[in-house]
Amino acid sequence: MGGAMIYERIALIGLGLIAGSMGLRIKRDGLAGEVVGHARTEATRQTAMARGLVDRVCTTAAEAVAGADLVVLCVPVGAMAEVAAEIGPHLAPGATVSDVGSVKRAVIEAVAPHLPQGVHFVPAHPLAGTEHSGPDSGFPQLFENRWCLLTPEDADPDAVDRLTRLWRALGSDVEALDVDHHDLAVAVTSHAPHLIAYTMVGVADDLRRVTDGEVIKYSAGGFRDFTRIAASDPTMWRDVFLNNREATLEILGRFTEELFALQRAIRTGDGALLHDYFTRTRAIRRGIIEAGQDTAAPDFGRGPKGDDA
Amino acid sequence: MGGAMIYERIALIGLGLIAGSMGLRIKRDGLAGEVVGHARTEATRQTAMARGLVDRVCTTAAEAVAGADLVVLCVPVGAMAEVAAEIGPHLAPGATVSDVGSVKRAVIEAVAPHLPQGVHFVPAHPLAGTEHSGPDSGFPQLFENRWCLLTPEDADPDAVDRLTRLWRALGSDVEALDVDHHDLAVAVTSHAPHLIAYTMVGVADDLRRVTDGEVIKYSAGGFRDFTRIAASDPTMWRDVFLNNREATLEILGRFTEELFALQRAIRTGDGALLHDYFTRTRAIRRGIIEAGQDTAAPDFGRGPKGDDA
Repeated sequence: MGGAMIYERIALIGLGLIAGSMGLRIKRDGLAGEVVGHARTEATRQTAMARGLVDRVCTTAAEAVAGADLVVLCVPVGAMAEVAAEIGPHLAPGATVSDVGSVKRAVIEAVAPHLPQGVHFVPAHPLAGTEHSGPDSGFPQLFENRWCLLTPEDADPDAVDRLTRLWRALGSDVEALDVDHHDLAVAVTSHAPHLIAYTMVGVADDLRRVTDGEVIKYSAGGFRDFTRIAASDPTMWRDVFLNNREATLEILGRFTEELFALQRAIRTGDGALLHDYFTRTRAIRRGIIEAGQDTAAPDFGRGPKGDDA
Repeated sequence: MGGAMIYERIALIGLGLIAGSMGLRIKRDGLAGEVVGHARTEATRQTAMARGLVDRVCTTAAEAVAGADLVVLCVPVGAMAEVAAEIGPHLAPGATVSDVGSVKRAVIEAVAPHLPQGVHFVPAHPLAGTEHSGPDSGFPQLFENRWCLLTPEDADPDAVDRLTRLWRALGSDVEALDVDHHDLAVAVTSHAPHLIAYTMVGVADDLRRVTDGEVIKYSAGGFRDFTRIAASDPTMWRDVFLNNREATLEILGRFTEELFALQRAIRTGDGALLHDYFTRTRAIRRGIIEAGQDTAAPDFGRGPKGDDA
């Protein structure tokens, strides 16, 4: 296992789904000499130790980063600035700092000012997750066959290369992107879809004539997939929207425009427009299956008996 | 197997996903003496015979319904009137006619006028499906643990009871609903979510700055689930929207109102509103899992390696 070691000591700040999955995989495959973790609450630190997410936990982030050659910030985007300010003075010279935030411009603005010279900052965003959160939810295969996007700007090439090797060892494909391009791409593929799903679930929840019982009972026709997305961590997603504001609002503006056009087609009975639109959207689905980012298995990935077994 | 027989002869008009799944299950469990099918194209009829969806195929619907004690219309909602007009004169006295359309008021208006006296009309809507369509896509477990909603109005109680027994034998829970209440409930749980998914996928497809390649590659963050919904059969869904117009537009109006409120919260930085909203939507998800309409398995029902195995 020693031959696979990429870092001497990795510090994971925040111990939720992403950090937990990283820790389990790093330890399983011997990708670091030691994995140190920090979480704000004692309960999370205890769970992290009990599940073996890390080798050691520290009660402060400053303590956790001491001597680490890689520090990964795995806290909600809105908490990045505070954590960066705390750890800045304690980072080892030559260390790499990275993160797993879903937006990159805001994280760079929050973190970079707090990092001392000689520390390499390589922002990262693994496109992986589930609707579950917290230290109980991680598993070592989370990143397999998923993308990890880096926005390194002018970071040290050796530091970028080493972090790339880590994410590949975690099972991901790695790609470097321009910061603003990243933020727009994820607004389309993740942020806008999440806000839309949250909205639709909220509407259903509000409807009094259709009782909650019916909304729940009859959810298999599409709605349940929205509820799965809309069960994602509220704090994480609040921070995502507040920190990728412009790109998200731009995509939502486009979305509303299109929705109005389809609503008008329904109102005026323009079946040809609807049929053409629905035919076009099938092609993009085929592309996703061919790219290995989903499967063609029917019934929304669930077994025919309504379970995942 | 004979003990389980509920109808002497069942005629399935249209041989796509729903009819195919019905036929396979009815034949597997001996729920009818004979299953006869009709599809417009020779290719579909051949596939239906090759897969054993039915015992016998007919080139016309009129021929298929002759002597059947149950006729199930499994064609798109927009084709119901024409089929009903064709079969009306050929229905056996005392036969039950049902359908599997996703809207009920429009189907009743399209079908009922063509049915002779002494024929029982019991409209039905199985809340089951996948994003696949056609005679190759059915499987006998499709309806297990799913709801089948009947809107019998003043239909003969014995005919309703017999159809209820069939759907229970297919694996479904059965419930009778008022027609307009049905159409509103499915507008919330199925029709509006589908239109929204189609819209979001269309928006992504249009975006030129973010290439198709990136939209596809980075789809795991939520978007891929929209594409799965938006890969559903275009003809079926065109007809659904055109035939459940008022309820769908009403729900979409509510949706837009809520979406604007959340957009405004993003724009003004109202994190508390967003967090409260996202917390509330989690509860409805728990209800769906407890009701057995989905599972708590993470990663949107897909395996950790991105497959469903």
